[in-house]
Amino acid sequence: MLILDGIGDRPVKEIGNRTPLEAAHTPNLDRFATNGVNGIMDTIAPGIIPGSDTGHLALLGYDPYQVYSGRGPFEASGLDMNLHRGEVVFRCNFGTLEEGIVTDRRAGRIKDGTDLLAKAINQMKFDIDFVFKESVEHRAVLVFKDPNLGPLVSDTDPHLEDRPLLVSRADDNNLPNLRTAGLINKFTEMTTAILSEHPVNLERVERGEPPANVILSRGAGSVPDMSSLESLKGIRSAVIAGIPLVRGVCGLAGMDILSAPGATGGLDTDLESIFKTIVGNIDDYDFILVNIKGPDIPGHDGDHSCKIEFIEKIDAALPLLESMEDTYIAITGDHSTPVMVKNHSGDPLPLTIIGKEVRVDDVASFGERSCAKGGLGRIRGMDLLNILLDLAKRAEKFGA
Amino acid sequence: MLILDGIGDRPVKEIGNRTPLEAAHTPNLDRFATNGVNGIMDTIAPGIIPGSDTGHLALLGYDPYQVYSGRGPFEASGLDMNLHRGEVVFRCNFGTLEEGIVTDRRAGRIKDGTDLLAKAINQMKFDIDFVFKESVEHRAVLVFKDPNLGPLVSDTDPHLEDRPLLVSRADDNNLPNLRTAGLINKFTEMTTAILSEHPVNLERVERGEPPANVILSRGAGSVPDMSSLESLKGIRSAVIAGIPLVRGVCGLAGMDILSAPGATGGLDTDLESIFKTIVGNIDDYDFILVNIKGPDIPGHDGDHSCKIEFIEKIDAALPLLESMEDTYIAITGDHSTPVMVKNHSGDPLPLTIIGKEVRVDDVASFGERSCAKGGLGRIRGMDLLNILLDLAKRAEKFGA
Repeated sequence: MLILDGIGDRPVKEIGNRTPLEAAHTPNLDRFATNGVNGIMDTIAPGIIPGSDTGHLALLGYDPYQVYSGRGPFEASGLDMNLHRGEVVFRCNFGTLEEGIVTDRRAGRIKDGTDLLAKAINQMKFDIDFVFKESVEHRAVLVFKDPNLGPLVSDTDPHLEDRPLLVSRADDNNLPNLRTAGLINKFTEMTTAILSEHPVNLERVERGEPPANVILSRGAGSVPDMSSLESLKGIRSAVIAGIPLVRGVCGLAGMDILSAPGATGGLDTDLESIFKTIVGNIDDYDFILVNIKGPDIPGHDGDHSCKIEFIEKIDAALPLLESMEDTYIAITGDHSTPVMVKNHSGDPLPLTIIGKEVRVDDVASFGERSCAKGGLGRIRGMDLLNILLDLAKRAEKFGA
Repeated sequence: MLILDGIGDRPVKEIGNRTPLEAAHTPNLDRFATNGVNGIMDTIAPGIIPGSDTGHLALLGYDPYQVYSGRGPFEASGLDMNLHRGEVVFRCNFGTLEEGIVTDRRAGRIKDGTDLLAKAINQMKFDIDFVFKESVEHRAVLVFKDPNLGPLVSDTDPHLEDRPLLVSRADDNNLPNLRTAGLINKFTEMTTAILSEHPVNLERVERGEPPANVILSRGAGSVPDMSSLESLKGIRSAVIAGIPLVRGVCGLAGMDILSAPGATGGLDTDLESIFKTIVGNIDDYDFILVNIKGPDIPGHDGDHSCKIEFIEKIDAALPLLESMEDTYIAITGDHSTPVMVKNHSGDPLPLTIIGKEVRVDDVASFGERSCAKGGLGRIRGMDLLNILLDLAKRAEKFGA
């Protein structure tokens, strides 16, 4: 399952009312479409805008409405943290607080010393067990390891600078959520006291750098009860993805994490390395999900030329996949990121499936509108893995 | 609703990458498609492989995930047994046991005396009420008539010969399932003792025939809480089907069972008789479901020529249906049985609906890929009956 992140788009006037995918020169993608069965796909449901987390959950066959309460657990899973069902996880930033105002949400994009700050936080005596772990630059994750907490609380992070630090509030009057809100507010207050006095921050102030003296939290979610793909479908599976969030989703599904040298979550990623890593590992797995983040980036930037250029780069590398004779390949996206929207959208995605026994249709190019005429019709993301497993004779009959 | 069992297929190289249905000469089916509205249908959901039982449940509008726990009750219903909600039903074989090893799963396909063996079993004193009923040859059905039992237990039938008789185990630690497992193991032990000493078996041994001295059980399921089609949709309905399992599903839906002289579940079935039976009864019912098992058989055998031949036989008999002027006819299948798979698959089925007021589309042949371009798009099996009742003005408005 080759996920071209944010590939779907809307017609753009400047390129003749074509989408970037329609405007791009993609002889290889078009050959895949010609030899395959095509359709369009709503990752979650028509008109529903998927996040990267909820979108990939759906593509793995999980119902995001059942397993998703917030981004926290999936982010933490991407950092290889040991999580247990029901724990409440927050994404955090080290920020700078001056008299109750968040003056820098990233504490000057702090690079060094967050490990020492995290160590001091973890030594703090607190009402419940918790783990705080620093990540890249100003980023971190916080896990409340208590079974009696709920995930439905608001962020302390104001999301904009020069705004007051927020008080977290429960979304409703359920006790588990009220408890979490109380605890994260207390945690924020106590850690601000500790961080403000910490040598790392005293030195930063002395050097004229903004101190990392507040933990801003957001995206609370509880660790879902997700059975692994192996136990649900009896398959060995793996992921190749440049972005930690997608690896985190796949990690909670029990998938192996493969790394391709030179692969990143950016436009500089090494596509040949990614495709060679697929080919090199396909014999060890029943299912590999590959996320190529590139097309999403110019989508967010509103840059159709850059999106076209990156799509053509993917197309050029695609023949590397053709050596896998006995493999079914689906090419699609996790959501649309139209350059006119500059954000994710709920527009359906083009989808092509190739492999030995597919009902090849008469679609001859890989695009949003050409695929809509294909033999798959309009499907949902949650059904795609089942379709692939059925084609590849890896599915089990329901009933007798 | 004319169900051509296993009709769906995948492209087959030897016949020019066409499916058997596409390769068959079917002027009548094609005329139906030309005069109808067409589409493709996932009986349960995309990529989900239906059994004959779960598939027909979906075609009658029931959600098999709600009502299906195992094949047992549907098999028993096909034998006209009086069943009650919650009772746990097993499919059984009379088998031959030698020192703990199942040496013959069918006790030499025993033909005579199973009624006497069943009588001896039913006279046995046991922990709970039960009914054991013999069927054709070595087959039988067992009903545990106790409200405190669960259906989630494994088979005692090893499914292969020269293997040990299995101990049934509950799928989980829920008490109702644990009770059932304990009871079926005790039942197996006690009946083996009774059967071994029974005159029918003593005579078989004397004649050098394998004794029917063990009851092998499989497919446990609890009798579902299924409201009848009459109470759910206010319609009188009937079924014509060669295979008992389909009759059993329809029986639990409260449908009348019609018989067509000469109709069987095989390739030798009398198609003209089936179609004449439809025409002869259509005035007495709002809805008739007809299952023609034929196409499924060469699908399982991997024989595309035979599948083509049988499809052409169906096509030749089809004009008999054209006398029913005021009737809406849907032609589809319950699942695909591709000759390359030799088993059921989750590939969607072609579907055509004809009748006075359908939105006739421009599809001109009845096939997997031609129907995919039709005006119905891609629908689910659970929706088909509702579509037909709506077309025929037999449905009720939801809301005001």
